[in-house]
Amino acid sequence: MAFTQTPPRLDRSEVERLVREVLTNRLKSGGTATPPPAVQRYAVEPSTPGGPPHPLVVNVSARHVHVRPDHLEVLFGPGAKLTKLKDLYQQGEFASEQLVTLVGPRQRIIPNVRILGPMRDYTQVELSYTDGVYLGVDLPLRISGNHEGTPGLTILGPKGSLTIDKGVIRAERHVHMSTADMAYYGVKDGDYLKLKIDGPCGVVFDRVRVRYHPKVVLEVHIDTDEGNACDLDSATHMELFK
Amino acid sequence: MAFTQTPPRLDRSEVERLVREVLTNRLKSGGTATPPPAVQRYAVEPSTPGGPPHPLVVNVSARHVHVRPDHLEVLFGPGAKLTKLKDLYQQGEFASEQLVTLVGPRQRIIPNVRILGPMRDYTQVELSYTDGVYLGVDLPLRISGNHEGTPGLTILGPKGSLTIDKGVIRAERHVHMSTADMAYYGVKDGDYLKLKIDGPCGVVFDRVRVRYHPKVVLEVHIDTDEGNACDLDSATHMELFK
Repeated sequence: MAFTQTPPRLDRSEVERLVREVLTNRLKSGGTATPPPAVQRYAVEPSTPGGPPHPLVVNVSARHVHVRPDHLEVLFGPGAKLTKLKDLYQQGEFASEQLVTLVGPRQRIIPNVRILGPMRDYTQVELSYTDGVYLGVDLPLRISGNHEGTPGLTILGPKGSLTIDKGVIRAERHVHMSTADMAYYGVKDGDYLKLKIDGPCGVVFDRVRVRYHPKVVLEVHIDTDEGNACDLDSATHMELFK
Repeated sequence: MAFTQTPPRLDRSEVERLVREVLTNRLKSGGTATPPPAVQRYAVEPSTPGGPPHPLVVNVSARHVHVRPDHLEVLFGPGAKLTKLKDLYQQGEFASEQLVTLVGPRQRIIPNVRILGPMRDYTQVELSYTDGVYLGVDLPLRISGNHEGTPGLTILGPKGSLTIDKGVIRAERHVHMSTADMAYYGVKDGDYLKLKIDGPCGVVFDRVRVRYHPKVVLEVHIDTDEGNACDLDSATHMELFK
């Protein structure tokens, strides 16, 4: 994963122009613009007697970034740490206060993209296909951490910028499961389930991938395209099945 | 539907600032930026022997605008007409060369939104929920032309701007059908079908509303959120069923 203070695909004056544009946009809005949260929406199917060990929770993951420590220092300065804005549903995971700007090959930018913590040993940018079309990035569908053959992107922070040469993905829709959850649904790590969302924009999502970790609680992650396609806010019933 | 040269919710200097911003952005990109097409993607399920009277065609409708003649004149000047960029799938429908800019209540803009022709007796703006969140408009789910209780928006053209007080919707997913199509699928106008898209991001869309017209050919319309959620480009099989 290559990075430089001066990204190879943009010269310094271009980066400075883009940063000015971002700052100008922030000033224009009086600093009061609310950036989109990293987790936009949240829906819970109430537990039923004899039901699953954990209630069915479906969260929409808005675009976000994971960073490794040396990249955070490039973006936010030497010694930079992530500071917590709020806890996410899985214990230990959090939305940080740190925001970056993404620059795509069409010279378009997406500002105010939130970094999720804690830090990882790789830097990864998770976008929707809508974002990919806008930026001009052809997003591969991947499970977190699988970066083989994925594209890169330029990331701007307040203290510097870097260009990653891989790690930009659309996250494959997935469900976090503990051993008890997998036993209840009769699946194993890597299997696929279906997720049914009833409501005015009802959808059945095929190929929801099971991701096992001993310490998680049951949680489905879909992206903003998927959350908007089914209008998760107006869901009347949700169901996970084979 | 109210409109004025000076929209009530924005003063003239604000509109001028926004127009300058749009023009500046166009100049920045050297005038070569390709605006998103009104119909972004297109997928056809090949006909089979004994199959439906028309092949199953699924199109993604990107954000677009329909206009009534007096509104077009406000935006593009007295005597303005729509000029054809390209034909759409339904005979007589076309993407025009005319583009407008939308201004939402969060003072954010979406430039380069295409007008579809021919003109109608109402002005209507069709957006995805992703667009609605960005602009700050709470979009009602509606069939074209049903504007009761829908929100408005400010529209900027090269010769003027107007604020409509209703007509901004998320189009309900629907399928255009002729008499022969309805007979084959065993449905009538206003009924709902399901649309199955197989592929790496497979989805079954519930509640695809049947819209009858004697002169149409079979065509499903979904929006960009829905097209991106199922990654229509990579669909391996499509099916319409009850």
